[in-house]
Amino acid sequence: MGDACSSPQRSGGARPTTDFTRTRALFHLPEGVIYLDGNSLGPLPLAARERVARLLRDEWGEMLIRGWNDAGWMDQPGRIGERIGRLIGAPAGTVVMGDTLSIKVYQAVAAALEMRPERRVILSDHGNFPSDLYMADGLIRSLGRSHEVRLVAPEEVADAIDRNVAVLMLTEVDYRTGRLHDMARLTEAAHAAGALTVWDLAHSVGALPIDVRAAGADFAVGCTYKFLNAGPGAPAFIYVSPDHIDHVRPALSGWLGHDAPFAFDLDYRSGPGIERMRVGTPPIIAFAALDAALDIWDEVEIDDVRARSMELGERLIAEVETRCPDLVLVSPRQAEERGSQVSFRFEHAWPTMQALIDRGVIGDFRAPDVMRFGIAPLYLDAADMVRAAEILTEIVAERQWELPQYQERRAVT
Amino acid sequence: MGDACSSPQRSGGARPTTDFTRTRALFHLPEGVIYLDGNSLGPLPLAARERVARLLRDEWGEMLIRGWNDAGWMDQPGRIGERIGRLIGAPAGTVVMGDTLSIKVYQAVAAALEMRPERRVILSDHGNFPSDLYMADGLIRSLGRSHEVRLVAPEEVADAIDRNVAVLMLTEVDYRTGRLHDMARLTEAAHAAGALTVWDLAHSVGALPIDVRAAGADFAVGCTYKFLNAGPGAPAFIYVSPDHIDHVRPALSGWLGHDAPFAFDLDYRSGPGIERMRVGTPPIIAFAALDAALDIWDEVEIDDVRARSMELGERLIAEVETRCPDLVLVSPRQAEERGSQVSFRFEHAWPTMQALIDRGVIGDFRAPDVMRFGIAPLYLDAADMVRAAEILTEIVAERQWELPQYQERRAVT
Repeated sequence: MGDACSSPQRSGGARPTTDFTRTRALFHLPEGVIYLDGNSLGPLPLAARERVARLLRDEWGEMLIRGWNDAGWMDQPGRIGERIGRLIGAPAGTVVMGDTLSIKVYQAVAAALEMRPERRVILSDHGNFPSDLYMADGLIRSLGRSHEVRLVAPEEVADAIDRNVAVLMLTEVDYRTGRLHDMARLTEAAHAAGALTVWDLAHSVGALPIDVRAAGADFAVGCTYKFLNAGPGAPAFIYVSPDHIDHVRPALSGWLGHDAPFAFDLDYRSGPGIERMRVGTPPIIAFAALDAALDIWDEVEIDDVRARSMELGERLIAEVETRCPDLVLVSPRQAEERGSQVSFRFEHAWPTMQALIDRGVIGDFRAPDVMRFGIAPLYLDAADMVRAAEILTEIVAERQWELPQYQERRAVT
Repeated sequence: MGDACSSPQRSGGARPTTDFTRTRALFHLPEGVIYLDGNSLGPLPLAARERVARLLRDEWGEMLIRGWNDAGWMDQPGRIGERIGRLIGAPAGTVVMGDTLSIKVYQAVAAALEMRPERRVILSDHGNFPSDLYMADGLIRSLGRSHEVRLVAPEEVADAIDRNVAVLMLTEVDYRTGRLHDMARLTEAAHAAGALTVWDLAHSVGALPIDVRAAGADFAVGCTYKFLNAGPGAPAFIYVSPDHIDHVRPALSGWLGHDAPFAFDLDYRSGPGIERMRVGTPPIIAFAALDAALDIWDEVEIDDVRARSMELGERLIAEVETRCPDLVLVSPRQAEERGSQVSFRFEHAWPTMQALIDRGVIGDFRAPDVMRFGIAPLYLDAADMVRAAEILTEIVAERQWELPQYQERRAVT
């Protein structure tokens, strides 16, 4: 099959326009590493080094406080938000950057609950990322008005939507299995029951085509350090539908969401549109890395990325299933039903992943027994899939996971 | 008087131990600039450039996801929190980094309100930084239980503390005037009335000696981009008294405050001690700059900084009052009652500040008519005070503020 991927989604049989040999060269990939954890932390875009250095030297260093105006720092949450917006189908003026994903979840759910004051249920699924559930839980404990986070299995979500549901809060791509929700269909079902939707796009943005506007999503949030490769702890984003943004009350009503932050009024008055979802002083150094990372997307067609991701995922599944029958696929078998990752269940998942990492194949472990492999087409190719499967096969066949050095370490992210 | 400052606070007449010529050399200060806005955004510590470059190159670039463990990224909020703790008199295990100051205010006030469920008043003053007031306002609107943010004049705070007050929320140093509250005395008064305290140390940390533990503060928060020089939008900190930390319920209950973040439990269970005040994924690139900026404090005695700050402030006041009688001091005249800034009221404050900036004297404007000058002894000396006053005098005497180019710009931070 080789490295050139044809695009099953592209009409007319045209070849993909994205040059993946070129995109791979835009990243620093350590020698000898096959990096299958870009869905946890993307690798370093080479341009980020120079961009950050320039920010420190020419902007912070030389402009000092004047950077807020003269280098446009103050406008970055909105300006970079527009760049994210283009990746998720958001109209201009509906996305803003800042804080962490957990904070953005809180903002979205708080706003949605307030728009449905007579309802008490936040509906989610067991596959949602736990921090989203925790933030919702913390919020409703503060509200103290008998709200409830109701959890069902991912496949039961549609049937669980009823007229008690204020907010349907879901992560589009399951962080463990890669199972992909149908955003448009579930949003339609939620709206039919009078509920609002909050979509977490952490594992979607940069991985597959997203159209929040066409899907009718009310709120969407996400992070930028996974498939967008913006670095550890990079800023999050929030989208608010244009149908709502002018009457959302921000629960986290910080000064930079104020209508006139530098008037220093004593009373809060929310700013225009999406600006009101800003909170505190934006993280300018992190934005420099993010901005450089986003440049890569200017020369990428997301349909090409999706097509290649599906093909690489298929290849990895085929290679692993042929060679390692003890590993059980826990991702959906149909590529269309997966995000950009492939996960296997294996009794010895934890030490096996440690052994893999030692051999340069970096995936990650998710409790209790899942090995997760992120497929990032910008810097991975079919040869990587084959080689990763070969190394995995050796480890499993030789029971290397029994070695004591692989039994003891602690997992992170 | 020259550059060598004797320390009025030091007993026994010993000379200061801090070498301010050396500390000045640790910063990049643009040619021709006298930087009197370090209380808004500190200048670039030279070491931050190399530290950030190394983080990108050797940690993110080479370690990828493994940096969370192998480079200690995951522990940085607590490890750097300890460094901040030493600057504010906080015991080990009581300070953690992350988010923005506004978010930290929200966490502190939410926790304090929950500890005083029968009380309804958040008491603050007109001199508090507006974002603190806005965040408290947003919180109580969410709670919807007839809470109230009650504002009084700074000098009336002590008398306004009564048994309805749940939380006394104050900024120790007034961002506009530099007026310094007596943290120990007001905390004692709050406790006597059964209230808790939340102290914002944004304009205190790195400017003057702080002892949150001796003062009995319940919560304290602050930012690191002012006198700590950690860069635009650098992470904030929160302190929680050891008396409370083990029974605080975090309102912003993110996964990294969970007792076992990587167990991915569906239910939230707060982590041990101060760890529970963490929320989302920490901003690792920003931490690299912050960590480098904090190294400077390892060779600085805060009593020396305070003594020099008072002396430089006195000098600036004397020079300006002698030369520019139209400018009215709005900071307290007694150095002991001021933080590390000097502010003047002037009818033409806005265009005058623009003219000053054009001449390389960078202070800032605070609406409606305040010119604010931050005094950061790490990189300023008496000659800077004299020169700044000379340039200000020329601008005022020659009515340069009337020039059209100084009338139109927009203020930022």
